[in-house]
Amino acid sequence: MSRVRVHNFAISLDGFGTGDGQSLDAPFGHAGDRLHRWFFETQTFHARQGKTGGSAGVDDAVARRWNVDIGAEIMGRNKFGHQRGPWEDHEWTGWWGPNPPFHTPVFVLTHYPRPTLEMEGGTTFHFIDATPEEALRQAREAAGDLDVHIGGGPSTVRQFLAADLIDHLHVVIVPIILGRGERLWDGLEGLEERFQIESVTTPSGVTHMTFTRP
Amino acid sequence: MSRVRVHNFAISLDGFGTGDGQSLDAPFGHAGDRLHRWFFETQTFHARQGKTGGSAGVDDAVARRWNVDIGAEIMGRNKFGHQRGPWEDHEWTGWWGPNPPFHTPVFVLTHYPRPTLEMEGGTTFHFIDATPEEALRQAREAAGDLDVHIGGGPSTVRQFLAADLIDHLHVVIVPIILGRGERLWDGLEGLEERFQIESVTTPSGVTHMTFTRP
Repeated sequence: MSRVRVHNFAISLDGFGTGDGQSLDAPFGHAGDRLHRWFFETQTFHARQGKTGGSAGVDDAVARRWNVDIGAEIMGRNKFGHQRGPWEDHEWTGWWGPNPPFHTPVFVLTHYPRPTLEMEGGTTFHFIDATPEEALRQAREAAGDLDVHIGGGPSTVRQFLAADLIDHLHVVIVPIILGRGERLWDGLEGLEERFQIESVTTPSGVTHMTFTRP
Repeated sequence: MSRVRVHNFAISLDGFGTGDGQSLDAPFGHAGDRLHRWFFETQTFHARQGKTGGSAGVDDAVARRWNVDIGAEIMGRNKFGHQRGPWEDHEWTGWWGPNPPFHTPVFVLTHYPRPTLEMEGGTTFHFIDATPEEALRQAREAAGDLDVHIGGGPSTVRQFLAADLIDHLHVVIVPIILGRGERLWDGLEGLEERFQIESVTTPSGVTHMTFTRP
């Protein structure tokens, strides 16, 4: 069966996967770009921006796995946009412009469904009001033999971990103290018992951790 | 001036420096010994128990700095014992037996002062009701030219960090999710701006982080 994977999920030392106060100008709230600077330096990110250059060391080697053999993505509504409650701005099509980097079906979890959005490059946003299990069923059907990527944010990853639906979790610990925002680990006591865990610190100063099934 | 140092301070991935439910049988509550297994394997710990053997790699090299050039220690009351409120059991002289491993004056922060305890091997416990600044003044006077060690627990280290009194912080991140207990990082947003930070993961699976003054 296809696996369920999380990649490049950055958290602060105090466990926040996003800062406080998300807005149109600040997708990660007061965290700004601090959780992702390590990623911006990589060849993987440069290529995604249509640029050359970038680092090709361990940060890049780990980062570039995020879309390999992925056939569908599931994300929380707050990863898709900053609106809360009923959709008011129907022109909003995500943070990523006309050609999002997913190139697969993307299932956006929301209590307020809206029509499917077909974007350039093969990305299709489906808006569904579903449990993690049901969302995964739909994503697996769309993914065929490929894996399903859980794209975040923190509460979405946390719900899938709590439901024991994740097979591969890659977390990046960034040495900053955010103090406020949304925590990844809440309610997951004993999570380590379900996984084999490896950690490595790279010269950029972040620590990559992989949680895989034993 | 002498420096103020924290060593071998272990926290879970979700930031807890001690578990929930401290008792006579469980100094670290439901965390048990899980935060300190990496330390028990080291030559430093073996030697402290009067034994030979133990690992002599990076875990040990880092661990053994805890009492080098230290002239006094400050600890919170919960590190000294499990009693709360007025002292009822005056026979209690700490978790460490008749010859504690400190061999210096130790200032125990408590709202309930009690007579000084002279132990074997040069450890003297002084019980003081003082602010971090005042406790540090007394500890520095006792330490002479040597450094002052802040021994924990989490709320004591946090208070000294909040007051910007710590020059060297060594934290050990253990890949477990405790879920409850006492957190180290609360209220310390932006702490990283005051320090140079280095991280390294060792084969035991823990990640050592040092925070030093730039």
